[in-house]
Amino acid sequence: MRILGIDPGLTRCGVGVVDAEGRAVRLVAVDVLRSAADEPLEQRLHRIASGVEAAIVEHRPDAVALERVFAQHNVRSVMGVAQISGLVLRAAAANGIAVELHTPSEVKAAVTGYGQADKRQVGAMVQRILALESVPKPADAADALAIAICHAWSARSAAPTAALTPAQRAWQAAERASRR
Amino acid sequence: MRILGIDPGLTRCGVGVVDAEGRAVRLVAVDVLRSAADEPLEQRLHRIASGVEAAIVEHRPDAVALERVFAQHNVRSVMGVAQISGLVLRAAAANGIAVELHTPSEVKAAVTGYGQADKRQVGAMVQRILALESVPKPADAADALAIAICHAWSARSAAPTAALTPAQRAWQAAERASRR
Repeated sequence: MRILGIDPGLTRCGVGVVDAEGRAVRLVAVDVLRSAADEPLEQRLHRIASGVEAAIVEHRPDAVALERVFAQHNVRSVMGVAQISGLVLRAAAANGIAVELHTPSEVKAAVTGYGQADKRQVGAMVQRILALESVPKPADAADALAIAICHAWSARSAAPTAALTPAQRAWQAAERASRR
Repeated sequence: MRILGIDPGLTRCGVGVVDAEGRAVRLVAVDVLRSAADEPLEQRLHRIASGVEAAIVEHRPDAVALERVFAQHNVRSVMGVAQISGLVLRAAAANGIAVELHTPSEVKAAVTGYGQADKRQVGAMVQRILALESVPKPADAADALAIAICHAWSARSAAPTAALTPAQRAWQAAERASRR
């Protein structure tokens, strides 16, 4: 299954695409969408949303995974992150793609085994899991991939697929293809 | 100038359209978009955003006015409101329409003369200003119209137009039409 992971943000929005088959995950693409702080807010939202929608069209993911935002953090930046999240959730719904939110600690625990891991540890594990030559930079790129990996490995996505027989898996793939 | 006022919300989103010429404002349309609390979040966002976009296509406003959200309020509902706001801001940008945020107290002060006015007072003044037979219901409908009226009367929109000569106004209208 192909997963589009999004680390939502107004200044930098991480976009990571992985293909997953059971526990095996492979990098498809990674990008960071940016908008300038001096642009009007509506133009920034439009720019980032258009980039996410372009990634959906280009990579046709089976699922979108998004970091869940918490309003207790920095209030100013949370508003922008919430707005970008809304645009990503809507883009997934408009394209008929399942979308799931994962908490930051869930993502960290999935890739490092430790829910309080720092950015460096997350980047290092993303590099190792995807067998990359270097750590994806900036951190938003590594985070988006970590979110996609977390989703691939979560009970809600990969587990049922991994438990299927080859025949069941072929049927599931055909059924998914027919929905496109 | 035609103004689309939005009272952003996930359960109920007020949509009000007024035509303004100086201080004179006229009701064009009012509606409340709804989504059910038991629908998945992404479907709710998609439903409301599609309704706002349909209103933009139907009414072709010159400006979109939106209530500014504050994160200090109820954290749970603020996330939904922020997400809807992001979708409205983006829809305006995608359609090349100017969009402006107004604070709740700015809106209340504009229509009632008092920044701490309650919903009843806002509804009564919206009814009077637009010469309606009854107060628009529910409150989200009246609030959306109040936001549109506030925008019409704010220095950023109506004032420059009101100060123009008839020739300048004709030029401005032609210039606006050419941008569509």
